[in-house]
Amino acid sequence: MSNNITWHKHDVTRDDRERLNGHRGCVIWFTGLSASGKSTVANLVEQRLYERGVRSYLLDGDNVRHGLNAGPDVLEPVYGKEFSERFGLGFSAEDRVENIRRIGAVAKLFCEGGIVALTAFISPYRHDRDAVRAALGDGDFLEIFVDTPIEICEQRDPKGLYKKVRAGEIKGFTGIDDPYEAPLRPELRLDGGKKDAASLADEVVLHLETVGIIPAPARA
Amino acid sequence: MSNNITWHKHDVTRDDRERLNGHRGCVIWFTGLSASGKSTVANLVEQRLYERGVRSYLLDGDNVRHGLNAGPDVLEPVYGKEFSERFGLGFSAEDRVENIRRIGAVAKLFCEGGIVALTAFISPYRHDRDAVRAALGDGDFLEIFVDTPIEICEQRDPKGLYKKVRAGEIKGFTGIDDPYEAPLRPELRLDGGKKDAASLADEVVLHLETVGIIPAPARA
Repeated sequence: MSNNITWHKHDVTRDDRERLNGHRGCVIWFTGLSASGKSTVANLVEQRLYERGVRSYLLDGDNVRHGLNAGPDVLEPVYGKEFSERFGLGFSAEDRVENIRRIGAVAKLFCEGGIVALTAFISPYRHDRDAVRAALGDGDFLEIFVDTPIEICEQRDPKGLYKKVRAGEIKGFTGIDDPYEAPLRPELRLDGGKKDAASLADEVVLHLETVGIIPAPARA
Repeated sequence: MSNNITWHKHDVTRDDRERLNGHRGCVIWFTGLSASGKSTVANLVEQRLYERGVRSYLLDGDNVRHGLNAGPDVLEPVYGKEFSERFGLGFSAEDRVENIRRIGAVAKLFCEGGIVALTAFISPYRHDRDAVRAALGDGDFLEIFVDTPIEICEQRDPKGLYKKVRAGEIKGFTGIDDPYEAPLRPELRLDGGKKDAASLADEVVLHLETVGIIPAPARA
């Protein structure tokens, strides 16, 4: 068997992957209030990237809460009660921090794989977002603030969450009785109160071109 | 803003990603004793896949233990003592189970992203590997048993771990005083005692062709 020194030289690197893909890897971190439009815009960005042959992956509640960051209820049938109570994530302040921390760590792996990782979580605390930023290389973390006034978010209320908060059925809701710490220096601020999701997605894609994550489309 | 029903139809799907990549996503799960050759073979497989334009990503101790599954020592400077003691992973039996569980969950995300995810961890317990298998779709989980006799592993001992075990400095070491539960029906068994790493990597690539994960190379 060849020794470690020999074969390690040939490991597939991030550079190799980016060359193969024809674009850089990065983490596009959407942050904003519930119903601000994060997921909608992130999905539209993914569609536009896909049409241009850019490899991306979107981390959101759907694919994270049932696996990586599953709660005790999901884990218990497979791993038993004691294990699930210890490792399952709930919605306490600390559990939310760990939720975001793990998502950041996974987004970093995708980034190192030469992929444009998108995340769409409220991620209300500056410290937690900054910790993800600090774990990534310069230029790898793009914080995108979906800045939609809470009145508009509450008016949309697609999941009826604001209604439940007002009825006292939910406590500790971001923007109402739990703080949302807006980014101080986001790479991009999207005006979710004035522009539609398609325009906002276009802004994001243009930004990715401008900073050299993806190539500009060829002109005729 | 367009409503959810309209734009959800256009979400980028796993099928879309696999079409763009020209191959299927999957999880190639290497399992075997310490120094059996898992990482070496996995790296060689990645190199061969890369040369064929196949998108892959290798999860191993290097990229997982400093981020996703970091220990309290790594977390404490950023998140404080209390948080780190609760969420940092150590090497207890339960922590090892959670380590493998998270790796499986992340490998699944890569698989859904149309990528060939490779993992190279001892993963000694059948239950934990089977739980990852169960979380994945049919044909998405390829368990590859790197079957190298412990005498050969101990002779190689690239990290000097077996030596430390024999000196009584490490307890609970897989294959010595902690069990290794060999796969009962792995998708592939590699004879790590008789063949070199390059031959074993060729076997894995051929298997991926045979089951249709990657296309066979064009013949002249």
